[in-house]
Amino acid sequence: MSVVHQGRAEQLTEAEIFRAHRGGKLRTLVPASPLDARNLSAISTPGVATVSRAIAENVELAAEYTWAHRLVAVVSDGTAVLGLGDVGPMAALPVMEAKAALFKALGGLDSIPLVLKTRDVDEIVRTLSLLRPSFGAVNLEDVASPRCFELEAALIEALDCPVMHNDQHGTAIVVLAGLRGAAALLDKPLNTLRVVVHGAGAAGTACARMLVAAGAGEVTVLDSRGVIHPGRPDLTPAKAELARLTDRPGARDGLSDVLPGADVFVGVSSSAVPEELIASMAPRSVVFALSNPVPEIAPERAARHAAVVATGRSDVPNQISNLLACPGLFRGALDAGARKITEPMMLAAADAIAAVAMEDLAADRVVPSVLDPRVAPEVAAAVIAAAEPGPLRGPRAGD
Amino acid sequence: MSVVHQGRAEQLTEAEIFRAHRGGKLRTLVPASPLDARNLSAISTPGVATVSRAIAENVELAAEYTWAHRLVAVVSDGTAVLGLGDVGPMAALPVMEAKAALFKALGGLDSIPLVLKTRDVDEIVRTLSLLRPSFGAVNLEDVASPRCFELEAALIEALDCPVMHNDQHGTAIVVLAGLRGAAALLDKPLNTLRVVVHGAGAAGTACARMLVAAGAGEVTVLDSRGVIHPGRPDLTPAKAELARLTDRPGARDGLSDVLPGADVFVGVSSSAVPEELIASMAPRSVVFALSNPVPEIAPERAARHAAVVATGRSDVPNQISNLLACPGLFRGALDAGARKITEPMMLAAADAIAAVAMEDLAADRVVPSVLDPRVAPEVAAAVIAAAEPGPLRGPRAGD
Repeated sequence: MSVVHQGRAEQLTEAEIFRAHRGGKLRTLVPASPLDARNLSAISTPGVATVSRAIAENVELAAEYTWAHRLVAVVSDGTAVLGLGDVGPMAALPVMEAKAALFKALGGLDSIPLVLKTRDVDEIVRTLSLLRPSFGAVNLEDVASPRCFELEAALIEALDCPVMHNDQHGTAIVVLAGLRGAAALLDKPLNTLRVVVHGAGAAGTACARMLVAAGAGEVTVLDSRGVIHPGRPDLTPAKAELARLTDRPGARDGLSDVLPGADVFVGVSSSAVPEELIASMAPRSVVFALSNPVPEIAPERAARHAAVVATGRSDVPNQISNLLACPGLFRGALDAGARKITEPMMLAAADAIAAVAMEDLAADRVVPSVLDPRVAPEVAAAVIAAAEPGPLRGPRAGD
Repeated sequence: MSVVHQGRAEQLTEAEIFRAHRGGKLRTLVPASPLDARNLSAISTPGVATVSRAIAENVELAAEYTWAHRLVAVVSDGTAVLGLGDVGPMAALPVMEAKAALFKALGGLDSIPLVLKTRDVDEIVRTLSLLRPSFGAVNLEDVASPRCFELEAALIEALDCPVMHNDQHGTAIVVLAGLRGAAALLDKPLNTLRVVVHGAGAAGTACARMLVAAGAGEVTVLDSRGVIHPGRPDLTPAKAELARLTDRPGARDGLSDVLPGADVFVGVSSSAVPEELIASMAPRSVVFALSNPVPEIAPERAARHAAVVATGRSDVPNQISNLLACPGLFRGALDAGARKITEPMMLAAADAIAAVAMEDLAADRVVPSVLDPRVAPEVAAAVIAAAEPGPLRGPRAGD
């Protein structure tokens, strides 16, 4: 695995992109080899009957003698795919395959994409409940907000295994890690920072919650109608909870009212931000313009005013990608035998990512490269340490 | 891949068997390499958005630019696992993993095990219909009879892709192939053979149908109550159809009435057959004692009377295993873009297996070894030639 940045995405041709996807980006692999008559007898009939009988007598042996316990289902209904929106499950599949391929390449984590031809929460829960013996964890991806909150909660309730909506918590973990890096670089303690989160969908909601949980000084969240506060009559349940968590006296208006003097801008809204507003932020400000593929403000323009600029793109420095959180987080959760992914596990993941960045901190390196091979093992180890060990420990997911 | 038989299954220790299954028998693999910033941009954001958008505009491109079209779902509810019976989905998983691992090792075919915590036909159909964009074909495995007939028919109706219950048709294809081999060896034309099929579950029903379709001289089928004929009031719909297909005047009684003088015994009943009945068969008879792991009659005892003896076991010669049919059959069906697996495709698969055996025919080689690397490509090619080409041709499943 190389960490050398070769070329920029703009230089990719359409032909090169399609070539990289031809035939799909994932295969299966049989680790036992060579296949001869003896191990054919061991892995298939008659040998497999011994293992099958043992699991029938004690179902917990499945964690040790099947791949389910090391396997993540990468699940989507295709309703909020990248910045493309509701393109459906078939068009979501290349994105889920990419996630599964990168879980493997970056974290040694086995996963399978499962895309669903329904957007009904109960049907998705029922489908995954019926398939539950087939996998060990669920990574939800690209499900539209606010249904994603309901779906994640229902799956956590229904399934006795780690379930996480990556667009929410994976992103939030990496935003927190990046903010820890930026805070250290700028010598501005996290608990003194005034943070403005622009966007209250899946990512914005989770980022705001995690920054509050980590003790950020002040967090203000805006949706398309302005600052989210308890006085607004139009809030969804998720936004109402956010209003309770983040309410600040006086913060009642729009971005132009709250961004001047702020230390940190986190953009997760897909809407442009005027350069003059970025210019109005506090000295040595931090701009995370995370909308993909088009950031809220072009990074070179943001850099005229901000001390640290990050985006979601892979072709400029400081990529805030949930890939920094996710193979490691699931590996850790599976290896710990955890039944849930808890807030302490997520905070530990953020700290582990930040710790890797600290070794080499700079304004264009407040988070490690997605290709940095140190990240996934460090995150997994931190998550294991933060997890409540469960009964289902099998061979390690990343082995 | 070695074709050398090393050791017998009896010599396998329990420790060796469990070791072969530890951590599961399947992994994912990312064919693109090395992973650098450039192909990260191509396979993930921003590149993947181009592919996703293209599929959203023309869903048929998914066959070319995702792995779904080359992927088989290996599906079971765990109700009829090997000879162990109804052990449930978790205990079925090691068997489905073995199947997926061997599909890959023997035929280069990608597949994922999906075990289901329900035995309700409608629920299984609904679950797989919702997941339909995730795979290209369904291999049903170890579903109890007679529900397996209803389930297979319902899935074929509901899904626009190849669906096959392997315990039925995979086994039937290889029985026909083996019988073609034995018939050639013994110089007894298939259309002169009197065949007795003992057992009318999934395998017995499909074997009888396929032998009739291939033009076997006379086929008689028995269940635990004796010969299946139209006069019996206790027949399930599947057995009633079998009675119509196979009825012969006079064949109204038990095994001891129909086996004397028969040319071929096909045992798929899990019940023992007395040696004296085998002795009563026609000269130069053929005994396929296929129950697993304990054949209807020990092969060395059968060999005292029969010219050709085959079993389902991997540790004695002439293994009648549906692995000879199956990776190749699905590869061929997927590569042809077929929407269904038809009888001509199955008959072509049997002929292809028999053709490989003919190159090296002997009493203990009426079918090729499961490990013979020639089989899957020959079966795939024959199936493609017999298929009606469909619109969904992508990169070849076995590439």
